[in-house]
Amino acid sequence: MSDARQYFSLPSPFAMKRGGMLHGAHVAYETWGTLNTARDNAMLIFTGLSPSAHAASNQDDPAPGWWEGMLGPGKAIDTTRWFVICMNSLGSDKGSTCPASIDAATGEPYRLSFPDLSLEDVANAAHALVTRLQIEKLACLIGCSMGGMSALAYMLLHPGSVRAHISVDTAPQAQPFAIAIRSLQREAIRLDPHWNNGDYDIHVEHGGRYPDIGMSIARKLGVITYRSAMEWNGRFARIRLDPEEREDQPFGFEFQVESYLESHAQRFVRTFDPNSYLYLSRASDWFDISEYGQGSVLEGLKHIRIERALVIGVSTDILFPLEQQEQIAEGLEAAGAQVEFVALDSPQGHDAFLVDIENYSRAIGGFLTRL
Amino acid sequence: MSDARQYFSLPSPFAMKRGGMLHGAHVAYETWGTLNTARDNAMLIFTGLSPSAHAASNQDDPAPGWWEGMLGPGKAIDTTRWFVICMNSLGSDKGSTCPASIDAATGEPYRLSFPDLSLEDVANAAHALVTRLQIEKLACLIGCSMGGMSALAYMLLHPGSVRAHISVDTAPQAQPFAIAIRSLQREAIRLDPHWNNGDYDIHVEHGGRYPDIGMSIARKLGVITYRSAMEWNGRFARIRLDPEEREDQPFGFEFQVESYLESHAQRFVRTFDPNSYLYLSRASDWFDISEYGQGSVLEGLKHIRIERALVIGVSTDILFPLEQQEQIAEGLEAAGAQVEFVALDSPQGHDAFLVDIENYSRAIGGFLTRL
Repeated sequence: MSDARQYFSLPSPFAMKRGGMLHGAHVAYETWGTLNTARDNAMLIFTGLSPSAHAASNQDDPAPGWWEGMLGPGKAIDTTRWFVICMNSLGSDKGSTCPASIDAATGEPYRLSFPDLSLEDVANAAHALVTRLQIEKLACLIGCSMGGMSALAYMLLHPGSVRAHISVDTAPQAQPFAIAIRSLQREAIRLDPHWNNGDYDIHVEHGGRYPDIGMSIARKLGVITYRSAMEWNGRFARIRLDPEEREDQPFGFEFQVESYLESHAQRFVRTFDPNSYLYLSRASDWFDISEYGQGSVLEGLKHIRIERALVIGVSTDILFPLEQQEQIAEGLEAAGAQVEFVALDSPQGHDAFLVDIENYSRAIGGFLTRL
Repeated sequence: MSDARQYFSLPSPFAMKRGGMLHGAHVAYETWGTLNTARDNAMLIFTGLSPSAHAASNQDDPAPGWWEGMLGPGKAIDTTRWFVICMNSLGSDKGSTCPASIDAATGEPYRLSFPDLSLEDVANAAHALVTRLQIEKLACLIGCSMGGMSALAYMLLHPGSVRAHISVDTAPQAQPFAIAIRSLQREAIRLDPHWNNGDYDIHVEHGGRYPDIGMSIARKLGVITYRSAMEWNGRFARIRLDPEEREDQPFGFEFQVESYLESHAQRFVRTFDPNSYLYLSRASDWFDISEYGQGSVLEGLKHIRIERALVIGVSTDILFPLEQQEQIAEGLEAAGAQVEFVALDSPQGHDAFLVDIENYSRAIGGFLTRL
């Protein structure tokens, strides 16, 4: 399998925000385009909770990436102009050091001995990578969903490191509805007897001791909150499965929307490490920019020093509601940035940034053209 | 324990909509007030999925009911004027025949041999009860949440049996978002190994083989969708639990919203029969008034013949969105009824009818006064 990932060894030891440290850790990343001689055309993308660094196809890995429609030559994020870096978050299992990685001190996977993970740690790992690439200031920092929170942490913790920012479907802090959803996802995993306190069989594709049920429920709950009721009314309505597609068991699936969720879950369950999921999910709950502003989101945002920002959200997002994007826009403006705020009505909910490429491209491409 | 329940034996056999029949079945109900000699002051209430027939305290059972603030002497539903009946839905385990009941033919609980349950069956059982009470026409039929769908079925299947209708936080058909939520709740239960294909220990308070985990996850998901993000921002924000309240386990509860969900789940888990929950949940998904209107919700509603209706919903309801209440109001109006439509902005979401008694009382009390 072709692979475009590069690896950056983090400074060792790498101190974590909430205590503990990692020894010999690394992060995976991919790049597109060319860094110019002034080294001022670099862009960094922070991903949501589950995507890898493979945001788009490139020479070494022609497979479509998770933001394929957005990123490439001539696209909204035009790789003939920008040198784009996408990093797999520290703690994610798509190449970066995570709870499924081997702890050199023991020769065994970290599992729950992995130190508490915060999005500030994700941000600090990315800053170390950017520094190593001899990029003094990012031309633009993009963060989507959870990655939007990592981006806020990056700008707060490293003043002067970013010129422009694009905030996509994210939040300045986790609100209780989102916490409740993620807490229930974590609970579904940890109450699965096969989770076994984190001691399941890592890297098995089938069989073994593995929390399939908990991961499936967590993923389905994720998909339900990533999309929107409006989209599904048009897409699934009350359409039934054909008789041969139905599950032959009591209370088995009968509606198309149920098999849609099932196929999402099946694609996810054995491809994401459950412990890594738990760490990243909790890190999302913990993030709160008001910690940097004496309890005020606005005051926290006011510490961010950038020149320009684009803040995008969508009215159908129930996980990161539009009001939270408005807060980010207001705070960055109060901090002195020139801010564009785009509220879309895409029907796809939180995931609109992955689906409604046309509208997100127009907003992001337009903003980047004006930089 | 005092108990105000009365029991009505259904005609035997009692034929179910989707085939199968019940022998020797009954429903539990409670009443308040006095039926007048003209027998024209009767009101029937259909409940949501989980409540019992105990809508309010009465002489035989002074414990507060689930709609205590709404129902009683001098309250919005004034029991000095109305003779009020609240029936425990057929298939629910609060006194009516349900999957946990003993099947006389075998001497064992029905469990999954209980016939497929539809809300039309719930409606027909209620109509048999009302007929037995020698009430030819209900002065008013009230349905809340799932009960609102049962009420629509009642009016459709028994033309001329209802004078006025109050529709509370309900829908004319299940939409895919609600189906997805309920499907996931059912899945959490049926994937719990202790559900054991319906063959768990019924009526145990602790221990035994019982799907506690599945029921807990199902209930928490229910509570999340019954309330609203807006309410929780004000109520819980990001308030942490005191250290001594936290769970001493990896990824244990840390935020107040998490322990709120946990206490809801603990109160529910062993007090509602899991198989009954599955049957009622699926009946909610199945309900679709468009089946009576050649695929059109509006045409289905047009078959309902009543004089007046009050339709109430709340803008923060994500499970039964306000647009669905608008559909009901439009359809009943198109059918010739005089309709009042009340859209509330209560922050409590779908559960507002149980919490925002002040606004619901004003609407319901006002409507009833004008009858």
